[in-house]
Amino acid sequence: MSDEADSLRALTTDIRDFAREREWEQFHDPKSLILALTGEVGELAELFQWVPADDAVAQFRDPARKQRAGEEISDVLIYLLRLADVLGIDVAAAARAKLADSRRRFAAHEVSGVAPTKE
Amino acid sequence: MSDEADSLRALTTDIRDFAREREWEQFHDPKSLILALTGEVGELAELFQWVPADDAVAQFRDPARKQRAGEEISDVLIYLLRLADVLGIDVAAAARAKLADSRRRFAAHEVSGVAPTKE
Amino acid sequence: MSDEADSLRALTTDIRDFAREREWEQFHDPKSLILALTGEVGELAELFQWVPADDAVAQFRDPARKQRAGEEISDVLIYLLRLADVLGIDVAAAARAKLADSRRRFAAHEVSGVAPTKE
Amino acid sequence: MSDEADSLRALTTDIRDFAREREWEQFHDPKSLILALTGEVGELAELFQWVPADDAVAQFRDPARKQRAGEEISDVLIYLLRLADVLGIDVAAAARAKLADSRRRFAAHEVSGVAPTKE
Repeated sequence: MSDEADSLRALTTDIRDFAREREWEQFHDPKSLILALTGEVGELAELFQWVPADDAVAQFRDPARKQRAGEEISDVLIYLLRLADVLGIDVAAAARAKLADSRRRFAAHEVSGVAPTKE
Repeated sequence: MSDEADSLRALTTDIRDFAREREWEQFHDPKSLILALTGEVGELAELFQWVPADDAVAQFRDPARKQRAGEEISDVLIYLLRLADVLGIDVAAAARAKLADSRRRFAAHEVSGVAPTKE
Repeated sequence: MSDEADSLRALTTDIRDFAREREWEQFHDPKSLILALTGEVGELAELFQWVPADDAVAQFRDPARKQRAGEEISDVLIYLLRLADVLGIDVAAAARAKLADSRRRFAAHEVSGVAPTKE
Repeated sequence: MSDEADSLRALTTDIRDFAREREWEQFHDPKSLILALTGEVGELAELFQWVPADDAVAQFRDPARKQRAGEEISDVLIYLLRLADVLGIDVAAAARAKLADSRRRFAAHEVSGVAPTKE
């Protein structure tokens, strides 16, 4: 794959062009995009809901199921990048900053093998 | 930003390393990751839920709120890339293919200004 | 409608019987049920995603759309009651307690007309 | 518990009164309510995300965790009933109809022990 194809910024631009060419920008306010994102996360969840947890990776090695999972993950990604774009957020920079922050908050030697609990 | 920082593949590798260093790979089966993704989508939704739809972009120009939105979008992205990685899915290639497919299914001159309805 | 038909406890029992008759109880661990719930919330979100916020109530007065919304809301409710049942939670009592707690935390004269913000 | 406390219709009325007393009805358009619902489903998902699937029921017998799960399930239920109310949907009748429809579509002797797959 070319560097271009792997770039978050290039993908964001392509999604923006896709919306613009169809005059769909009018529908892309943040709340509507989050609902669309929720819809795609729901479709992703449905693919895995009844699969045994410890067999999910194995079952999704099947090419047809892997293809379907890839499509749903892509749909989530596309709406997520569209949302960031509409809000003027540089998602690559934001994700880098978030990961750096998580590295500080969860020191490897302190949390090793322990899942952080949400209360 | 360097090309590296904007790369989906490089970000995926960094997230994998982050999990590996903390021995958190054991928790990262697909179903658990989709639940974590759902949690982050929920936090994103909460930021916008009571904001008037047509004022959301303007209200999130405020630096503190934009920062918060960027963090939640990042959390969604991080779990999404982690999920794709665990499933062995090249998310950049999958998103490119999905976008190409949408270009075929929704010809610009046919759907211009009309939101596709889900039934 | 009879009192029975309107009862959360009776509905919960019917859903349990439905699962038992099909030997689907084996699939109904909490994580799987939350993924199924997420799937149904996604279908609900998709119905409304591109509808203008201030026109949604009016558009869903249309009988066919109201019917569809009722079906998706029902699917969410069914998985939610099934989850509570699996966890041994009396959802009617829990919801009553939550509402009483909200009445204490959000005194009407203090929060009147102000949406509580999530930070 | 009294019949009243267990009634979907009585609970719906109480939630409506709660919103009315705080003049929060103005915020309760369907899209905003679905975002709020998504937020609460996210909080529910976070409680379970890293728990082993086959140990979730046992871990949530702990009174404090059961209490937390009951609160999040209640929050989902409250927004769901509020949404149905705003749309004029009788959720008890809708859920009864949906369950009857599922009984027809999934005959017990045909689907016994087989999880319905979503494609």
